[in-house]
Amino acid sequence: MDNFTYCTPTRYDFGRGVELKAGERLAQLGLKHVLVCYGMGSVVRSGLLDRVLSTLTKASVAYTLLGGIEPNPTDPKVREGIALCRTEGIDGLLAVGGGSVIDTAKAIAAGVPYPGDFWDFWAGKATVKTALPVGVVLTIPAAGSEGSGNSVITLLDGLHKISLRTDSALRPRFALLNPELTFTLPPEQTAAGIADMMAHIFERYFSPTADVEITDRVSEGVLMAIIEEAPKVMRDPTDYQARANIMWSGTLAHNGICGTGRREDWVSHFMEHEISAVYGVTHGAGLAVILPAFMTFMAQHAPRKGAQFARRVFHISEPDDTRAALLGIDALKMFFTSLGLPVTFAQLGISDPDITLLVKKLHENKGQTIGGYYPLTATETTAIYKLAL
Amino acid sequence: MDNFTYCTPTRYDFGRGVELKAGERLAQLGLKHVLVCYGMGSVVRSGLLDRVLSTLTKASVAYTLLGGIEPNPTDPKVREGIALCRTEGIDGLLAVGGGSVIDTAKAIAAGVPYPGDFWDFWAGKATVKTALPVGVVLTIPAAGSEGSGNSVITLLDGLHKISLRTDSALRPRFALLNPELTFTLPPEQTAAGIADMMAHIFERYFSPTADVEITDRVSEGVLMAIIEEAPKVMRDPTDYQARANIMWSGTLAHNGICGTGRREDWVSHFMEHEISAVYGVTHGAGLAVILPAFMTFMAQHAPRKGAQFARRVFHISEPDDTRAALLGIDALKMFFTSLGLPVTFAQLGISDPDITLLVKKLHENKGQTIGGYYPLTATETTAIYKLAL
Repeated sequence: MDNFTYCTPTRYDFGRGVELKAGERLAQLGLKHVLVCYGMGSVVRSGLLDRVLSTLTKASVAYTLLGGIEPNPTDPKVREGIALCRTEGIDGLLAVGGGSVIDTAKAIAAGVPYPGDFWDFWAGKATVKTALPVGVVLTIPAAGSEGSGNSVITLLDGLHKISLRTDSALRPRFALLNPELTFTLPPEQTAAGIADMMAHIFERYFSPTADVEITDRVSEGVLMAIIEEAPKVMRDPTDYQARANIMWSGTLAHNGICGTGRREDWVSHFMEHEISAVYGVTHGAGLAVILPAFMTFMAQHAPRKGAQFARRVFHISEPDDTRAALLGIDALKMFFTSLGLPVTFAQLGISDPDITLLVKKLHENKGQTIGGYYPLTATETTAIYKLAL
Repeated sequence: MDNFTYCTPTRYDFGRGVELKAGERLAQLGLKHVLVCYGMGSVVRSGLLDRVLSTLTKASVAYTLLGGIEPNPTDPKVREGIALCRTEGIDGLLAVGGGSVIDTAKAIAAGVPYPGDFWDFWAGKATVKTALPVGVVLTIPAAGSEGSGNSVITLLDGLHKISLRTDSALRPRFALLNPELTFTLPPEQTAAGIADMMAHIFERYFSPTADVEITDRVSEGVLMAIIEEAPKVMRDPTDYQARANIMWSGTLAHNGICGTGRREDWVSHFMEHEISAVYGVTHGAGLAVILPAFMTFMAQHAPRKGAQFARRVFHISEPDDTRAALLGIDALKMFFTSLGLPVTFAQLGISDPDITLLVKKLHENKGQTIGGYYPLTATETTAIYKLAL
């Protein structure tokens, strides 16, 4: 077990109707004028945005709107938001949406008080010391950004999709999680979200650090809950209990509790980021393709954690580690397929991926050797992309 | 799944040497003069207190000492601490010890800014609105007080042992967790701590709220980790990895993550508090006696959760719920016994407990009907105490 520091100060309000606490929570933070960020308009059409804004008015919190944030959010929107905050004297942000909206809000929050270009943080040239406070009304359980200190932004120039990780500077101050708001998510978005949250656990589970039984068991618990509840939300999108379990699982998958005391991996995310940057696919769908390929490679080279996952989560009794790990991957693929997720490039709609380009960009962005669990150079990452064909 | 609010702002530093961050963490909170609380002198004899104090001096944080805090801490020490803080103009507290020391520090922290008697909070006559900040150097993994908003104090007049629960007012601002500091714990204290942390999970696990799969799975995960690691620390008290897993399990058992989204129980704690208030036994040892008795009663009246525990944690395949629950209790008792813990009043050294007195005090303190999982009047709590004979 490695030394660690862990701090998750986010205040979660969970359950029916909690989005109506937005104004009160912002006022408690002493905020006077916030930038309300949202996506492509579904929160406008559903009436959610109006419902939330009315609580701001009631709490005497002024607001300015920033809509039109796209999936796989890019730097121009962040720059637009930073300029807006500075012009309007804005002192905080409220993200109403999923990971893309929250990540954009966080990037704006970091950029406003910083005299240089906000991308410096993502490029590793500067560290976030201070940021405007961010609150969240979550509508898509997937990215886990409502409880994390991370933000994934794509720089359009060169299509660099980079995840910035902070300890606590960018953790939302509060997050309002109402499972009912997820009833209207289309099945493919629900499924992609499930793959994303599972990936957040796998990235921490495939760790070179041994003897972290407590973190392993918590991680396996969250995975088992997701696997139990996911078919229920696919069958009945308005199943409140199942939606609630999935929503809270998504937060726990990524607020750090599944990573305490160990080195993490993040190779699958890095490899997927190149796919979604180049081909514009949904992040979670890309992960459903990369994860089994990554795990298949590991079954052959470092089967320990894959075998443990297979035995503890899918109750596979095979004694040989490699064979157990491969059986676990079969079960995982069947699970993804049952949710309607792709598990190959072809199923993702990319019949002939430019693997040379993906590998080149991957190592340009992340270095010659990547991976916490098992070191991977271009030779190995090429092999993993090929396993996803 | 019930609506909930969850916020755990405690900053944890975990690992070798983290106790040396005490001064730095106190200074970061802007504290100038703190009350350093400790117990019966083992931290003096081991040199830990001096090591910690030297970091305060280095960080220019002045301190006043309050030692001699006993197990099952009582109100006179709290009053002494409150008076000391007021006289000396103290602005924060550092607890160096286990649950008793931390709980006393929290009670002092709540009492100092309050114009009335601090016991008002424990008696339910007032709510903690503000408190001095508290930091922790943990030496005994058991009570989970390093991450909780709770504090258990006994009022000597009438021997009322009461747990005050706050949302976040009394959560420590930081906790320094070095597993090496637990190497010297005597086996009976290590074992009692393990029973205590398991009880903290059971109190939340035995819930009337259905459909909380995610919280169930996380709880079962922490229980499985404890059951895996406990024999290792009993065998070799200096096994760093096992000590580390047990220490972090103790925090997760009680920082609220095992309770999100459901009503909790706490009957076993209430029943044990009467035993330790009257007979002065170690809290964890008392719990090892009460828990199997409580679960045996429930196996006969509401076997659902006991059966789930038996199947998922002890892998018992019995299809009948009552029989499965009873087999799980057998396994739990064997586990406690293997750690050297008592599982009956007689083994606890109380050959003829005054059950009438225990039941009378229990319902005086907690009301005619108690229990979140299954309602219990004096008839049923008498039966449970008798099952522990």
